[in-house]
Amino acid sequence: MEASYPAVHPVGVPPQFKGAGPPATRMKDLPGSAGTLGGMGIRFGQFAFALTSFSVMITIPDFSSVTAFCFLVAAMVFQCMWSLSMGILDGYAILSGQCLHNSLFVSLFVVGDWVTSTITFSGACATAGITVLIDNDLNRCGPNHCSRLEAAVAMAFLSWIMISLSFFFSFWLLSSRYHFICKSPLQIIL
Amino acid sequence: MEASYPAVHPVGVPPQFKGAGPPATRMKDLPGSAGTLGGMGIRFGQFAFALTSFSVMITIPDFSSVTAFCFLVAAMVFQCMWSLSMGILDGYAILSGQCLHNSLFVSLFVVGDWVTSTITFSGACATAGITVLIDNDLNRCGPNHCSRLEAAVAMAFLSWIMISLSFFFSFWLLSSRYHFICKSPLQIIL
Repeated sequence: MEASYPAVHPVGVPPQFKGAGPPATRMKDLPGSAGTLGGMGIRFGQFAFALTSFSVMITIPDFSSVTAFCFLVAAMVFQCMWSLSMGILDGYAILSGQCLHNSLFVSLFVVGDWVTSTITFSGACATAGITVLIDNDLNRCGPNHCSRLEAAVAMAFLSWIMISLSFFFSFWLLSSRYHFICKSPLQIIL
Repeated sequence: MEASYPAVHPVGVPPQFKGAGPPATRMKDLPGSAGTLGGMGIRFGQFAFALTSFSVMITIPDFSSVTAFCFLVAAMVFQCMWSLSMGILDGYAILSGQCLHNSLFVSLFVVGDWVTSTITFSGACATAGITVLIDNDLNRCGPNHCSRLEAAVAMAFLSWIMISLSFFFSFWLLSSRYHFICKSPLQIIL
């Protein structure tokens, strides 16, 4: 009667699935994702760079005579509005303990970040192309304020790098749906 | 003795984890991901648009006098090389039954697609900015072959849209790591 039998446990006890699959990192704790201090820092960084780029652009006389420069100014205004709104939302979530990691919010962040980053990047590239044309190809930099243009483009690129970071965090979170740790407002209502 | 006891099963039998977490879609079956017919079609689409853009650009006399145009030509060459290589790899995977869905390959696709799409988009935007400057702002379209420039930019944007699709599929696959259905060559060797 010393034979060893395998240990048993009741089927009624649900098996623990937490260890299954890849390591389940809580995205709430990932610095840089929405609703974290890192995420809020990245948002305000985007806002600061975009505001600087906008401020430099509007000091260039006759900037409105070139379509690409107008586009960059409009893109920077849009970037400022989006980043400031998201930064305030992050701040509210941190202070009130609200959770932003649900499918509704994260989908909104992904789409908004992608659209905003594409607009910012296209404005920066178009302005950079014209700046290089004026500076290197035509050598007419004197009256065209190349240094201001270069500064504005550099700030726009930095803003784009920072919003790309936000986009990658949000997209990673969206595609790793099993990391969602709170219900969406629609789920709560329904 | 009619009392019901919970059914038991040996602990030695590993619990089935396949049903845990979100619905486990096999990414291999997702049209457009690497190693599928859809994925190969997207790759050859990128290649075709990039090749058309390159062909149109090099027919413009003195295109090399503008840095942004040279950059677009270089970007289109890079795009052609990358898309053709990936298309051939997809075709090989389909014909030989090789699996491309492992961490090594998918990471390579994500980085390569992101770099290539960024270079293509920046070249297209810079050229578009200069085309709008010549066409709308300066009204000097006659000797500058605006229609060819516009066609080349449009083809470059179409190529960028298609490589963005490839990037999204690869990034989705990378971030949903539990969908990997084959081992990487390194895992097989080690």
